Amino acid sequence: MNSQYVIGVDFGTDSVRALLVDARTGETVGTHVHEYTRWKQGLYCDPAQSQFRQHPLDYLEGLEAAITGALASVPDAVRQQVAGISVDTTGSTPVAVDEAGTPLALRPDFADNPNGMFILWKDHTANLEAEQINDLAHHWATDYTKYVGGIYSSEWFWAKILRTLRVDAAVRQQAFSWVEHCDWISAVLTGNTNPLSLRRSRCAAGHKALWHGDFGGLPSDEFLTRLDPLLAGLRDRLFTETYTADQPMGNLSAAWAKKLGLSTGVVIGVGAFDAHMGAVGAEIEPYAFVRIMGTSTCDILMAPTHDIGHRLIRGICGQVDGSVAPGMLGMEAGQSAFGDVYAWFARLITEPVRALLGNDAATTLAEQLIPYLATEAAQLPLTEADPIALDWVNGRRTPDANHTLKAAVAGLNLGTDAPRLFKALVEATAFGSRSIVERFLAEGVPIKRVIAIGGVAKKSPFVMQTLADVLNKPIQVAQSDQACALGAAMFAAVAAGVHPSLSSAQQAMGSGFDAHYHPRPAQVAIYETLYHRYLRLGAFVENETAPGPVNPA
Amino acid sequence: MNSQYVIGVDFGTDSVRALLVDARTGETVGTHVHEYTRWKQGLYCDPAQSQFRQHPLDYLEGLEAAITGALASVPDAVRQQVAGISVDTTGSTPVAVDEAGTPLALRPDFADNPNGMFILWKDHTANLEAEQINDLAHHWATDYTKYVGGIYSSEWFWAKILRTLRVDAAVRQQAFSWVEHCDWISAVLTGNTNPLSLRRSRCAAGHKALWHGDFGGLPSDEFLTRLDPLLAGLRDRLFTETYTADQPMGNLSAAWAKKLGLSTGVVIGVGAFDAHMGAVGAEIEPYAFVRIMGTSTCDILMAPTHDIGHRLIRGICGQVDGSVAPGMLGMEAGQSAFGDVYAWFARLITEPVRALLGNDAATTLAEQLIPYLATEAAQLPLTEADPIALDWVNGRRTPDANHTLKAAVAGLNLGTDAPRLFKALVEATAFGSRSIVERFLAEGVPIKRVIAIGGVAKKSPFVMQTLADVLNKPIQVAQSDQACALGAAMFAAVAAGVHPSLSSAQQAMGSGFDAHYHPRPAQVAIYETLYHRYLRLGAFVENETAPGPVNPA
Repeated sequence: MNSQYVIGVDFGTDSVRALLVDARTGETVGTHVHEYTRWKQGLYCDPAQSQFRQHPLDYLEGLEAAITGALASVPDAVRQQVAGISVDTTGSTPVAVDEAGTPLALRPDFADNPNGMFILWKDHTANLEAEQINDLAHHWATDYTKYVGGIYSSEWFWAKILRTLRVDAAVRQQAFSWVEHCDWISAVLTGNTNPLSLRRSRCAAGHKALWHGDFGGLPSDEFLTRLDPLLAGLRDRLFTETYTADQPMGNLSAAWAKKLGLSTGVVIGVGAFDAHMGAVGAEIEPYAFVRIMGTSTCDILMAPTHDIGHRLIRGICGQVDGSVAPGMLGMEAGQSAFGDVYAWFARLITEPVRALLGNDAATTLAEQLIPYLATEAAQLPLTEADPIALDWVNGRRTPDANHTLKAAVAGLNLGTDAPRLFKALVEATAFGSRSIVERFLAEGVPIKRVIAIGGVAKKSPFVMQTLADVLNKPIQVAQSDQACALGAAMFAAVAAGVHPSLSSAQQAMGSGFDAHYHPRPAQVAIYETLYHRYLRLGAFVENETAPGPVNPA
Repeated sequence: MNSQYVIGVDFGTDSVRALLVDARTGETVGTHVHEYTRWKQGLYCDPAQSQFRQHPLDYLEGLEAAITGALASVPDAVRQQVAGISVDTTGSTPVAVDEAGTPLALRPDFADNPNGMFILWKDHTANLEAEQINDLAHHWATDYTKYVGGIYSSEWFWAKILRTLRVDAAVRQQAFSWVEHCDWISAVLTGNTNPLSLRRSRCAAGHKALWHGDFGGLPSDEFLTRLDPLLAGLRDRLFTETYTADQPMGNLSAAWAKKLGLSTGVVIGVGAFDAHMGAVGAEIEPYAFVRIMGTSTCDILMAPTHDIGHRLIRGICGQVDGSVAPGMLGMEAGQSAFGDVYAWFARLITEPVRALLGNDAATTLAEQLIPYLATEAAQLPLTEADPIALDWVNGRRTPDANHTLKAAVAGLNLGTDAPRLFKALVEATAFGSRSIVERFLAEGVPIKRVIAIGGVAKKSPFVMQTLADVLNKPIQVAQSDQACALGAAMFAAVAAGVHPSLSSAQQAMGSGFDAHYHPRPAQVAIYETLYHRYLRLGAFVENETAPGPVNPA
């Protein structure tokens, strides 16, 4: 084991982080974060229309800055021992590319055209197209949505492609193929971005592009053409094979080796999405449920594929063999709003203060408000008559995706003050989590452990204790606050052959856990009743919600 | 018409006001407000137990101070022309009296005993007793609750008497009879407080003491004894006859004539409750619906008794012949929280600011918050997808009283800010109003006009316009901001013979209207849909609310 250092690169929504890790110990020896320059200025986005685009130059500049930054202060000996680099990104974040695999926005004629840029995961401009995909798939001989829980989202690959082809004639003419963010960055590092030969991520393809072995790959050309003749022939310019992230993509290109001060012997791993690599970084194992808890949650559960077989898990938005680890069925779930529920309530209080008392008062208040509410809420008694809330302020992702649903609060009286309402909202997010857990259990998928990473997991003991009580399961919080980048580093170690398997990489490099929350029996019993009140309120709201577009803007 | 001035005295929850009025024109020539000294200090009350008591000395001192204050700056000629005084008070606010009609707390041995004082309308210590009255009445040959909408309240006469007799042996021994606040003040002015001969108010007796002509007066001794043997024989020490407030009670006693600087020729009218006299002050007429809109609402509708006959109005909490005007069936309804809903929301925002930014910031915010929210809310578009709320933060008074109900809000998403939520809460109070109006209509009682008085009516154009749109009825706001005291003055004018009838007193003395709100057709149509969403949310909450005590503390 000569080469013992690996680099994990984590492309988030606002910034990219590189983590230089000792593959023998998991010790971080260098790290650097770079914020996207153009994105920070709000360029190419139109939030009112839910249009969110990122320029490929933001990524390229960030890739170089983050890796060189992470390497900046380490001795040459370390630099010479870097064995691999792996990348995770947000997704589905696809881009139109030409025959060379170059994103159109890197060409002068498309430099300022948002449709030639990466279409960020949270872009919702393709609502209509998602609806049409669902309508057609549900009436097709093969329901191509069956492995994504029955509902295709406007946030995903095909909807975004179709929308862009429809609205932009120039892209329509020049787009030879389409590539996901995680695939393109990895390909760039190898120097081969040819869309027909670069190794596509199983994770991205399976969760977002309706790729499945049973389908012989992507949906048929007949299906795509029926959806819109604009898609005719595209399937052949995409991919049939996909690769798990423990596989190598290629070696570092000479050009990038020079930029980064590394050798061309560095192996580049196949890419994947951030939550999946984060789950690995947080030491996921079979039947462990790893939650990436922030503004929203992304929840990853994996099970040996031979255990689950071809059984479909009802209402869970993705089930992909190998999307997390080879030989394992990766299942993705999540809540559209988690920390966002608390942030919403804080804004409700803070914004009138801004209008009436000014910016300084509002800023001071905003900094202290959620911790204050959490402290007060933690001291409140818990009773079966407490106010009850739904967590659907941004719709529902899992189980049974429905972005038209809205939140509600019941049980309010003159004694319901801000801490009591905050407590109800925290419980609502926990009940939403429980409904996901219950769905897995009802579908015969046991959950042996709950592991949490992300900002809420690290910073909110009140939320985490409430979640443990509501789930009636202990929760461990990963020590690392960069679990996604650490997971990418673990994949790099396997792809480069430093470790023989993902589990041995996890064992050697895992950060362990620094907080453990245990369910408290008295609270568990009361939450059992409150959870059923949550379900009844949810059923009422669902029943009231007129059938409509799946993904309204 | 020699004597042309009359005095209306309005005993509110915190203070008493006297209004000296020219009976020919309605012009106010003197007024004075006196705040209750002991009450202001919080004496004899225990809010945590919902115990609210008022000392008779607060009333006596206030009575003298308010009337002498109102007379202070008028010439002797006016003073000599005062023809009558009438009194309205809160209710049901009964007190235990001895054989002379002296409240026990005026005797040295009871001076500091809250059980010998007036039990204020909002005292909820008698929840258990109210439940027992309901249980027994609903199984009795005569359902004595039939004219109060089927549900007896812990805020009312019998519940309070029974509770006090049970918990206080001294009161049990010394209480000869019980008198309502409005009856006792009027009696005091005449000098005859004998509980067996003082003229009891039809309004108080009919709405709160289950008095009805069909019952031969109060509930039978058999019923009361079955309820609790402690009540045996009390019926005979109360009253059989009751009097409408246009009737005289007697003349001003020599002692009070001297105190007030008036002659013993002044006629004292029979008393009544504030909302009923307020409705008269606001120029109520048959099938006009008068709303006293403040923290809560009290709504008065009157109809010629010969029109309505003995028909029962389902779910309306009082139906009493002559309680407002002679020959008219007075019906009382109301919302347990109206302005209180807005105040609750303002506190939700203000209190965290107090905790984190201090008292000064919170005070500044509190002063401006509701006007700010109303201004912002008035500019919002109105759509059928807007958030929807229930107004039940303090339970529901009418229709179908249920104090265990709580409020709820649905349709919340990340875009729901404080003004949008405030708008939903204002609409909720208007929907609550509409549900009362709809009940009257469904029971065959038409509503020809809507008249509003009280703080909300005078100060909140946004609320009033919303109410007009939701009710789809024009609303007139009475010019006088002292409609209760003005109504008492009108009754005084009739009792004293200055005017031959209440309607002629209203015509001569009415203040008219200074604001008119007209329903806007575009809003009316959308509110039709939103009102049905309100009803469905309400039905859900009602269904969820486990049967329990009618009047929980």
